Amino acid sequence: LTLKDVGEFGLLRRLGLYDRAFPSGWVGPGDDAACMPPPAYSLVLTSDLLVEGVHFRSTTTSARDLGCKAVAVNVSDVAAMGGRPLAFLVALAAPAETPVGWVEELYGGMAEAEKAFGCLLVGGDTSGGPTRVLSLTVLGVAPGPGPVTRGGGRPGDDVYVSGTLGDSALGLRLLEAGGVVRTAPERFLASRHLRPSPRLALGAAIGAGGVARAMIDVSDGLLQDLGHVARASGCGAELWAERLPLSSELVAVTAAEGIDPVGLALEGGEDYELLFAAEPLRRREVFRVAQGAGTRVRRVGRLVEGVGVQVLARGLPVAWRDLRGFDHFARRR
Amino acid sequence: LTLKDVGEFGLLRRLGLYDRAFPSGWVGPGDDAACMPPPAYSLVLTSDLLVEGVHFRSTTTSARDLGCKAVAVNVSDVAAMGGRPLAFLVALAAPAETPVGWVEELYGGMAEAEKAFGCLLVGGDTSGGPTRVLSLTVLGVAPGPGPVTRGGGRPGDDVYVSGTLGDSALGLRLLEAGGVVRTAPERFLASRHLRPSPRLALGAAIGAGGVARAMIDVSDGLLQDLGHVARASGCGAELWAERLPLSSELVAVTAAEGIDPVGLALEGGEDYELLFAAEPLRRREVFRVAQGAGTRVRRVGRLVEGVGVQVLARGLPVAWRDLRGFDHFARRR
Repeated sequence: LTLKDVGEFGLLRRLGLYDRAFPSGWVGPGDDAACMPPPAYSLVLTSDLLVEGVHFRSTTTSARDLGCKAVAVNVSDVAAMGGRPLAFLVALAAPAETPVGWVEELYGGMAEAEKAFGCLLVGGDTSGGPTRVLSLTVLGVAPGPGPVTRGGGRPGDDVYVSGTLGDSALGLRLLEAGGVVRTAPERFLASRHLRPSPRLALGAAIGAGGVARAMIDVSDGLLQDLGHVARASGCGAELWAERLPLSSELVAVTAAEGIDPVGLALEGGEDYELLFAAEPLRRREVFRVAQGAGTRVRRVGRLVEGVGVQVLARGLPVAWRDLRGFDHFARRR
Repeated sequence: LTLKDVGEFGLLRRLGLYDRAFPSGWVGPGDDAACMPPPAYSLVLTSDLLVEGVHFRSTTTSARDLGCKAVAVNVSDVAAMGGRPLAFLVALAAPAETPVGWVEELYGGMAEAEKAFGCLLVGGDTSGGPTRVLSLTVLGVAPGPGPVTRGGGRPGDDVYVSGTLGDSALGLRLLEAGGVVRTAPERFLASRHLRPSPRLALGAAIGAGGVARAMIDVSDGLLQDLGHVARASGCGAELWAERLPLSSELVAVTAAEGIDPVGLALEGGEDYELLFAAEPLRRREVFRVAQGAGTRVRRVGRLVEGVGVQVLARGLPVAWRDLRGFDHFARRR
């Protein structure tokens, strides 16, 4: 059964998007636009485009994982502004030959994300097209003194990161190596790639408490993303290699396979952890807020005068090759 | 010069998206998400996906027209909820071989739309991909008693439409017939297709005044869209053929070419006029609000008990073939 067989309206009926109940004051799918009651807080708005063959492959990513992850990645951006997600829109283009089951699984994954991340699918668009393209837009609110941008850091600020780093990159490597994901550590690493856990409670708590001066989510890799914060804040940064938080699963698998764990933690993308800078006098407050949000954070460096990110190992600078970020149009490295 | 030559970051620099000034309390492109101060009104959110070869052709649509129209179509949806647009996000996928000039023209068209429609480009995403895909998301607010949905009409309500109908469909026909657009009426009709004028002032005034019970913008064609309103309102509707507002340009060109003007007005899509239902006792108020918004409206029918839309000519029912809406996945008619 393909999209050609059921048609656009048939698809929308099958997905049940028009039959859902919404809170009072909301307008869900089926009208000209979605509506929500006036919020009391600053708005946060972010959009992402996922293109088959560029960001995902239907052969290696299940539609359910893709749907859930597409929402996760966007709500992570909302968390990185100190906000919490409220609602999202989905625009999907797909060839007429696309199996209906694939689309149903995709929306099934997004329904899981609605529950997991506490936000509602309120609208969107569907269309034909030569390739599968998914565009997600998330609307959130930022309670507290206002959104936490990348640019508010100052030299001397502590740099913190939540959770553990590099798991997703290693998980992707395992999945691409032929899908031999059998042991418990391997399954953990693969799930960190396929089902990232955006740090929503921590992001909202940091935003509400006004404890961080700058924040970003780690999507391009720690080095890159700390570089973004430092540049936007008009300063440099140093990272302490021995303080990088590594999962026991990552340590075990990299040891067995002879891979450098620190390289993965520094450069591996798609961690969706929160990276933030705060004044040293707020150190106790940071850990209290993190504990309240049920998320571990670790101090991994600091902002300094100057430009660029310097990695230190036991206090000594180490050479770390300067990488450009993933560039969608440039020739592949 | 193609996207491959300048790269993603080079493109963003050339577009100057990071150099723009925003009002206090706003965060524009370049951070994890865009932010706006807390609004006092209900939020309106809508998204649209435009795929090359499905919704536009780079050979016949200029990038500037495409950029402007993509915003116009979405702000029209916000107006159809009784809202006014505030901000928008743009997600663009394009092959690396895409000329940079095309993308710059596209964003140039969106910059024109910002000025014309009073809303700001606040963020988005760019990506590679096998085909050009543009996804627009507009955020607006609905002042007044709340958003005007499609479903609030009741039998006995007057049905109104703004402006004139069928111009865009005829303009498209002229453009597709080889681009022979020379005379002033032909240029007017083509511009109605390429540069639609969403009825922002009228939509916001209707929303603020609470004068309409149901509203939609005419994108699929009058018959289709009145059908949507009637169905959502749980009733039927009648349309008076001799009352349909036609431009003098449409009348002149259809007469010269032997085309049925009423058919174009009933079925031609992409008018982006507002179609709304209001209680008869509000008739004077409706015309006063429309005059205040500087937009002509005409009473063209009424909601009735029953189902479906009946076209009447001088009070007598006329057969009008029942068309399905444009279906993106189904076999072409």
